[in-house]
Order: sequence, then C-alpha cells, then structure tokens
Amino acid sequence: MKKTAEIKELKFDENGLIPVVVQEVSTREVLMVAYANEEAILKTIETGYAHYYSRSRKKLWMKGETSGNFQKVREILYDCDGDTLIYMVEQKGPACHTGNTTCFFRKLAE
Amino acid sequence: MKKTAEIKELKFDENGLIPVVVQEVSTREVLMVAYANEEAILKTIETGYAHYYSRSRKKLWMKGETSGNFQKVREILYDCDGDTLIYMVEQKGPACHTGNTTCFFRKLAE
Repeated sequence: MKKTAEIKELKFDENGLIPVVVQEVSTREVLMVAYANEEAILKTIETGYAHYYSRSRKKLWMKGETSGNFQKVREILYDCDGDTLIYMVEQKGPACHTGNTTCFFRKLAE
Repeated sequence: MKKTAEIKELKFDENGLIPVVVQEVSTREVLMVAYANEEAILKTIETGYAHYYSRSRKKLWMKGETSGNFQKVREILYDCDGDTLIYMVEQKGPACHTGNTTCFFRKLAE
C-alpha cells in the first residue's frame, strides 16, 4: 500500500492505541472492531495485510496468522477527529473466531 | 425499539463506556464512531434516536440535538466479545460536523 497522509495526523489514546473498524469492501458489512498501535498501522501499510495490537496478549498480531483468515487491506480511512480508523478489506473466510462472517451477529434491540 | 438481549451481556470499559460504530442502513456506509454508557443505550432504545456519552463534555447527548442531524436507530447489534456496538441508523443530513456525509472522508493509505 502507499501512504496518502501522515501517521502524525492520528490521535492515539493514552495506551498508544486507536480503534479500527473493519469493513468488507464488497458488501460494506462491518466485520469486527480491533485496536492498532503505530507499528500495526505501519506493518499493515507495508504488507497490505491487516495487523492489530492485542490488548489482552499485549502484542502485535496479523489477522489470520493462526486461523488463515487473512484480511487484504484495500484502503485505510481516518475520521474527522483522527482518532478512529477504517480498514476496508477483502476478508478471506469468516472474520469471527466463532465461525460467523462478522463478529456482529447478535442483536441487542430492534 | 424493543430489547432482544440484556444490557448485562455487554462489557463496558473501566470508564463505563462502550464504542459504537454508526452505520447508515441504506448504504451500509460507516458514518462515525462514538461512545455510549448504559444510560445512553437505554435512552436510544426508549426513544429510537441515537444517544451517546460525550467523553470531552462528560455528559449524555442525543445526536442532532444542536445540528438537527438526528439518527433514527433501526437496530443495535453487539459483537462476539460484547464490547462493541453497531447502531444501524437512518441519518438525517450529514453525520459529520464538517458537513461531510461521513466522518471518514480522509484516506491514510491505499
């Protein structure tokens, strides 16, 4: 991928993280929300595959590294406040560890 | 709206907040990301209009209360971890305070 804006435009939280909404490019379905640090974003841009920072395991991870369900990133968007990202991806296999296409498979209200 | 699951299924962070991805029902475009506390979620379900908790102003707010750009909420989804919501909305006017349809109008990489 190639950068079209500078990482310094982004606002990371007190833990150096920024939330990432992950959206499937073909259907616009929201697949998951995860967190990235600067290193994860740079790795994503460098490799073209979605990288995140795991808050529980306290380490960088590439989506699909164990499941094979990689995310090819087509573009990265950032919001007006610079404190949230969208990774627009082509998802291989299901995004959710439960086997569902998306992590948002349950309804709270309608 | 009517609840289809219990609020106690949700995991709020150490500040009592949960991130909310806001998606336009007709286009599936991601419009913004904001934060809700339990009160904001209950108000949203009760009124059918999107309510959030402002981290900067430290208070409950209804989207559109000053701009008129209300969000009629069609459904609320929650993810496998129970720590993120989607409000699926009909957005009136632009979602972003800049006048853009979505807050995600800038590209970091492609």
